[in-house]
Amino acid sequence: MFRELWDEIAPIGRDPRTGGYLRLAWTEPERELREWFAAQAARRGMPVTDDGNGNLFAWLGDPADGGAVLTGSHFDSVPQGGGYDGPLGIVSAFLAVDTLLARDARPRRPIGVVAFAEEEGGRFGVPCLGSRLLTGALDPDRAAALVDRDGVTLAAALGARPAGADPDLLGKIGAFVELHVEQGRALAEVDAPVGVASAIWPHGRWRLDFTGEGNHAGTTLMADRRDPMLTYAFTVLAANKEARLRGAHATMGRVEVTPNATNAVPSLVRGWLDARAADAATLDALLGGVTAKARDRAGRDGTAVSVTQESLTPVVEFDNALRGRLGAAVAARTGLRVPVLPTGAGHDAGVLSGHLPTAMLFVRNPTGVSHSPAETAGDDDCVAGVEALAAALGELACD
Amino acid sequence: MFRELWDEIAPIGRDPRTGGYLRLAWTEPERELREWFAAQAARRGMPVTDDGNGNLFAWLGDPADGGAVLTGSHFDSVPQGGGYDGPLGIVSAFLAVDTLLARDARPRRPIGVVAFAEEEGGRFGVPCLGSRLLTGALDPDRAAALVDRDGVTLAAALGARPAGADPDLLGKIGAFVELHVEQGRALAEVDAPVGVASAIWPHGRWRLDFTGEGNHAGTTLMADRRDPMLTYAFTVLAANKEARLRGAHATMGRVEVTPNATNAVPSLVRGWLDARAADAATLDALLGGVTAKARDRAGRDGTAVSVTQESLTPVVEFDNALRGRLGAAVAARTGLRVPVLPTGAGHDAGVLSGHLPTAMLFVRNPTGVSHSPAETAGDDDCVAGVEALAAALGELACD
Repeated sequence: MFRELWDEIAPIGRDPRTGGYLRLAWTEPERELREWFAAQAARRGMPVTDDGNGNLFAWLGDPADGGAVLTGSHFDSVPQGGGYDGPLGIVSAFLAVDTLLARDARPRRPIGVVAFAEEEGGRFGVPCLGSRLLTGALDPDRAAALVDRDGVTLAAALGARPAGADPDLLGKIGAFVELHVEQGRALAEVDAPVGVASAIWPHGRWRLDFTGEGNHAGTTLMADRRDPMLTYAFTVLAANKEARLRGAHATMGRVEVTPNATNAVPSLVRGWLDARAADAATLDALLGGVTAKARDRAGRDGTAVSVTQESLTPVVEFDNALRGRLGAAVAARTGLRVPVLPTGAGHDAGVLSGHLPTAMLFVRNPTGVSHSPAETAGDDDCVAGVEALAAALGELACD
Repeated sequence: MFRELWDEIAPIGRDPRTGGYLRLAWTEPERELREWFAAQAARRGMPVTDDGNGNLFAWLGDPADGGAVLTGSHFDSVPQGGGYDGPLGIVSAFLAVDTLLARDARPRRPIGVVAFAEEEGGRFGVPCLGSRLLTGALDPDRAAALVDRDGVTLAAALGARPAGADPDLLGKIGAFVELHVEQGRALAEVDAPVGVASAIWPHGRWRLDFTGEGNHAGTTLMADRRDPMLTYAFTVLAANKEARLRGAHATMGRVEVTPNATNAVPSLVRGWLDARAADAATLDALLGGVTAKARDRAGRDGTAVSVTQESLTPVVEFDNALRGRLGAAVAARTGLRVPVLPTGAGHDAGVLSGHLPTAMLFVRNPTGVSHSPAETAGDDDCVAGVEALAAALGELACD
C-alpha cells in the first residue's frame, strides 16, 4: 500500500544519471506532483483549496467547522536531493487518512492534508517560503520580487502576487503534525522506526571575509605573503573542532575566492559558517570560539577577518503537551517505543509553531544521509510512520 | 626621458577605480599599445615586422644580416595587474636603443625590439603563447581553437590562424635579453637597482580532488560526516608549511566546491596547488610532503584525495657565459653591483632559452608585489635599468 503510492511519484523529477531529485518549486516536476496531489484528494473526495501563497490543502470535513488537524509537508527538493525529504510527509498523510477511515474512525474535527511551497528555498533562496507567507513572517511584496537563477520572479512563477498572511485560515487549524524522514541517525542508533521531535536547534549563518594581499604565486616569498586562504583554512578546522567540543554542528561548505586563480595569492577569501546547537548559549559560545581563533590566526597571517551575521533563527520548542499526547497515543496504538529527539534542520512545522500547537514525527533514516541521492528510508519504517501518523490523527481528530 | 615615455602608456587600460590594468591580449587597450609600438618604431626609423603569431618586431639594421640582438617583453597584463610587468621591458628597449645611438655607438649587428603576445595567458589561458608559437612549442591549430571567456577564438582575435614556428627568424637572432620588473624583494634586500637572472625555478601545477559525502549541514552529526572541506583546509596549511621548510613556494589560490551551499556538507572540494622550488628534487619533495599529509588527513576525515598533474615546467638555466658577460659589461659601464638571482615566474625568455642564448635583467621592485595594482618601480631604478640594458646591447651588438 505504501510502496504502491510511493511508486507513483518516485520517478517524477529524478535525474537518471545520479538518482538525485530536481523538484524546485513551480518547475515542471513539482507541478506534476501538485497534479498528483489533486488527483489523490479527488480519489478520496477531499476538496482542494489553496491559500494564494502556493500552499495546497485537501480537506476531509469542512474546515469552516474549525479545530482542524493539519498534516503534510512539502514536495520541493534541494537540487540533487533525496526523494523522501518532504514528499514522505504528504504520501503518509493521505495513507494515514485511508488507515483512519478503514478503521471506521469517525473524525469529529476536519482533517487537512497540506503541501507547502518552496520549503527548501532551493529556487528563490528563502526556506519555508510558503509557510512564512501564510503566517505573515514574510512580506508578500518582498516575496513577489524574489528572483530565481534564470531571472524569473516568484510572482511570475506563482502566476500572481502572493496573498500573504491568512489569519482566518490559521484560526481554523487546531494543530499541525508534520511527518518527515529523519536527517540523522538518532533513530537508527536506538533501533526505533519512528520518533517525535522535541525542538529545532537554534541556527545561524555568518559570512566571514578574510582579506589579505593579492600577489604572484611564483615570485612572492612565503615570508612576504599575506595570504587569506591560510586564515580561511585554519578557521575551517577551528570551526569543526569548536563544534565537536560542544556537541554542536558547524559547517563551512561554501567559499568564494578573489581572483581564484591557480597562480595568484588571493586578495579575498569569503567563507560561510553554518552553525547550530542545542541552545542559544552554546551557539554563542561556538561562534565566539571560532571568531577568536580566526582573528588570532589572522594576526599571524597578516590578514584581517570580518564577520557578518546573515541570519539567526532562535530555538523552536515544540508544544510540550501535544508532544506528550502524541507520543503516548502512538505508543499505545502501535506498540512502538517512540524516542524524543531534537533536529538541526528547519521545517514548516517550526514556522507554524509560533501560531498553533505543532508536532513532528520522524521516520528512521538508516544512513542518516539527507539532501543527497543516498537519502532513504525502509518500506517497513515508512509503513510504521503511516501507522504512527494515523494514531496521531485519531488522537487529535477523533477523540 | 624615462618618465616622459612612460607617461605615454601609463593611462592605457588602467581601471580608474582600482589603479589596476586590464590589458588582455588583442583587446582595445592592448591594440592601442601595439599602435604606440609602431609609432615608436617609426619615430626611430625602425621597420616593423610581425611573425604571424601576434609578436611584433622593430628592427635597427637588417635582420637578414643575422646574429641579431633581440630585446623586449610583452604588453599584456593579468586582469587588475600592475603596469610594469611586461611594458617596462619594451619601453626600456626603445630607450636603450636611444642611449646607445646618442653615444655614437655603431651596432655591428642588427638590434630588434620585440613585443610578445599573450605572455600572461590572461585571455586564452596559455602563458607565453606568442613565444611558444614562434618556437614551435605550441601547435598553431591547437592555438587557433583556444577560446576566451566570451567564446572568441584566438584565430578570431588574431584575425588569422597563427603562423606557428619560424625557424628562419629564430636563426637570425644571436641572443635575447629581456628586462623585467622584479617580482619579489631580493634586489630591495641587497639595495641594488638592477640584477641579472640565474634561472627560472621549475614550476608545477596540480589539481587535488577531495571527495567526501554530501550531506545536510544542520542534521548530520559531526562524527558521521565525511567532509572534504576539512581535508582541503588541512592540505592548504600543510602546503604552506612544507614550502616554508624547503625555501620553496606553494600556493593554493583556487578552489571549486560542489555544491558550494552554506547549508550543505560538500561532496567534492577541488583545489589547485601551484608549487615552485629552486630545483626539481626540492619540488618533488615538496609535492611528496603535501600529498602524504593530505592522504593521512583524508584517512582521518573519511574522505579521499586524488592528485592530477596539470603542468610541469622544468628548470630554465639561463646561458651561463652570456650572463657572466652581461653582468660584467653592466657593472663596468654603470658602476653598479649586479646581483645574480633566480625567479619563480615564467617568462618568454624562458621559452626562447631552449633555442638561443638568453638573459634577463631585473629592475628593483620596492614592495615585491606583482600582478597587483601595488606593483611598482622607482623612476631612478627604471633609468638604471635602461642604462644596464644599453650596456648589454652595446656589449652584444657593438663589440
